[in-house]
Amino acid sequence: MDVIDTRYFTFAHPPDELELDSGGRLGPITVAYETYGTLNAQRSNAILILHALSGDAHAAGSHAGEGRPGWWDSMIGPGKAFDTDRYFVICSNVLGGCKGTTGPSSVDPATGQPHGLGFPVITIGDMVRVQARLLDHLGIETLLSVAGGSMGGMQALEWLVSYPDRLHSAILIATAAKHSPQQIAFNEVGRQAILADPNWKDGHYYGGPPPAKGLSVARMVGHITYMSDLSMAEKFGRRIREGRRRARFGNGFEVEEYLRDRGDNFVRRFDANSYLYITKAMDSFDVSAGQDLAERFRRILAKVLVLSFRSDWLYPSSQSLELVRAFKRASVDATYCEIDSTYGHDAFLLEAETETRLVRHFLETVTRERTPAEAKGLVAVRSRTRSG
Amino acid sequence: MDVIDTRYFTFAHPPDELELDSGGRLGPITVAYETYGTLNAQRSNAILILHALSGDAHAAGSHAGEGRPGWWDSMIGPGKAFDTDRYFVICSNVLGGCKGTTGPSSVDPATGQPHGLGFPVITIGDMVRVQARLLDHLGIETLLSVAGGSMGGMQALEWLVSYPDRLHSAILIATAAKHSPQQIAFNEVGRQAILADPNWKDGHYYGGPPPAKGLSVARMVGHITYMSDLSMAEKFGRRIREGRRRARFGNGFEVEEYLRDRGDNFVRRFDANSYLYITKAMDSFDVSAGQDLAERFRRILAKVLVLSFRSDWLYPSSQSLELVRAFKRASVDATYCEIDSTYGHDAFLLEAETETRLVRHFLETVTRERTPAEAKGLVAVRSRTRSG
Repeated sequence: MDVIDTRYFTFAHPPDELELDSGGRLGPITVAYETYGTLNAQRSNAILILHALSGDAHAAGSHAGEGRPGWWDSMIGPGKAFDTDRYFVICSNVLGGCKGTTGPSSVDPATGQPHGLGFPVITIGDMVRVQARLLDHLGIETLLSVAGGSMGGMQALEWLVSYPDRLHSAILIATAAKHSPQQIAFNEVGRQAILADPNWKDGHYYGGPPPAKGLSVARMVGHITYMSDLSMAEKFGRRIREGRRRARFGNGFEVEEYLRDRGDNFVRRFDANSYLYITKAMDSFDVSAGQDLAERFRRILAKVLVLSFRSDWLYPSSQSLELVRAFKRASVDATYCEIDSTYGHDAFLLEAETETRLVRHFLETVTRERTPAEAKGLVAVRSRTRSG
Repeated sequence: MDVIDTRYFTFAHPPDELELDSGGRLGPITVAYETYGTLNAQRSNAILILHALSGDAHAAGSHAGEGRPGWWDSMIGPGKAFDTDRYFVICSNVLGGCKGTTGPSSVDPATGQPHGLGFPVITIGDMVRVQARLLDHLGIETLLSVAGGSMGGMQALEWLVSYPDRLHSAILIATAAKHSPQQIAFNEVGRQAILADPNWKDGHYYGGPPPAKGLSVARMVGHITYMSDLSMAEKFGRRIREGRRRARFGNGFEVEEYLRDRGDNFVRRFDANSYLYITKAMDSFDVSAGQDLAERFRRILAKVLVLSFRSDWLYPSSQSLELVRAFKRASVDATYCEIDSTYGHDAFLLEAETETRLVRHFLETVTRERTPAEAKGLVAVRSRTRSG
């Protein structure tokens, strides 16, 4: 794939603000995004990729002068699952993020200072409405598909219920209709670790040292939940390591050094306030919006692929099955596959080979089934689905 | 049960020091302990209860002027599982602890200051050797049983391999031969949260404010792992709560407030350095000592009861089964039961009714089977076991 640049789109007037689920307004909003492949003349081959908690717009390819490919490069590119010879693939950084899209670390034009905790409460719904604005800007009315894992899957669910007319399919990977109290609890530990760091200073740390130790602990907790007991056993066992930091109170294990390193690396590339806001958006998400899930899904026209991983204990298969059962009750055309991986939640980033087989076949089916209906437009498709 | 007092025993000269697994020596050592019931004339009815990470010597009954009973009061007392009308029950605070037994917060007689990080590295083996000294002091040569859950089970395992001549039975609950990397990882997150707290000051915080925020985060992580996803769902669901601390960045959930409260309470009753040393002792523990586990168990004469809980994902049943298989290969008389509880790891403290049935029957069998052999002494028992 060619060298990729991140591009930026700022909502232009009118309207230059976004109405938020929390009731407030936010604007102007800048969105960082990347595209891969070419939009066809019918504008019918666009796929929106949705990133997880710590992801960004850089999903594939490489930036000039940087060796490191995008976070889902194994899945996006010529001949890959999201085949850029056939599809026009878009990925944008979420609202509240820290990789180019407006978030707590962005400068508030009203004050000339970073928002910090002045940033409003945001939701997965707000993130998705920003993405819809980006698509408007790109001149894309309907998407061939939306796809994402973990928090990306939550955004895909939100797309299904908020914009049923704008997408032909959705791919939900290792995700949930809502967080369980255990999932909330793990996020809360991370938040409390950040809040406990004296450098956090109620979110006003910009220009000074960031709450690095707190954010690092938060990331360590996260990493444990992203791996499985088995993948940790295979990767580290109980091997002892004398790391950079001397082991105290007893032996130092490799797994400890790995987690500390991952925590330290994360601090260099992520903003603590974004971590607070985005994890809260995940915890607050509930695609049912208090309704019966099947009722909520009844307006969905898209074909849905749901994938989970057997060893994923953070987003267990039972949560995917809850979605699938509700899709079925709502007569949504949903396919489910549990992939037998040992990688835990991380599998959605690592099991590219298996995912590729499933996603490629699914997208081909969606393309084929969509084509005859395309001429009549989505309204016709909807009538057919409703009567079918 | 009568009002209970904690008593203290300090190793007298000679020898007034303990040789540690780490190679160093430590002394004098004070041990906090409690006893319940009466030692019989044959000194044959003593049971040693072994506490988990945050436990202490106060296992049962109530202290004068305090309403709160001991941590395993549901299991220890007249007519209970560990029936104090029949058995003489002992519980002591572990070495490295902060509830009366020598630990990092104790004053080092050499300096007149608390040990802090000058405290030597300790192991589960060291804890058990201190308990053996306490039994010597109490004039108890052989134990009818040792019993403990979680880290208490590790101590029971250590008793089995280190003092095979001194016990007739052992009850291992929700424990493991060694920590998996995932178990180490959760402990390491807790340790890093403490180390990240600027009040920790390399362990020299005594006399000043303790690293309360770090220790609280550590405890929060622990609590998540002690509960099951289901028990959290039953207890909290996704109920929203406006707690004492205003929810920021979005809704506040009950589970968050619960965890913060548990974290804050813990800080008032536990020492951060003890948390560091004791969790390291747990992580470093490996009853196999690098040998085949069955080989390691071959000298065991005691009858063993192994209990695990279906929803315990911190010490999963697979770890208990690993022990049971090794016991069987070593021809140890081992019984295993997986209890169908939804409480997760906490079940060992909460499933008193089921545990009582199993433990009472087990102890009766041990008492009955032991009696004829008693006359011949343990040496005879050993020959019988070896030839059998």
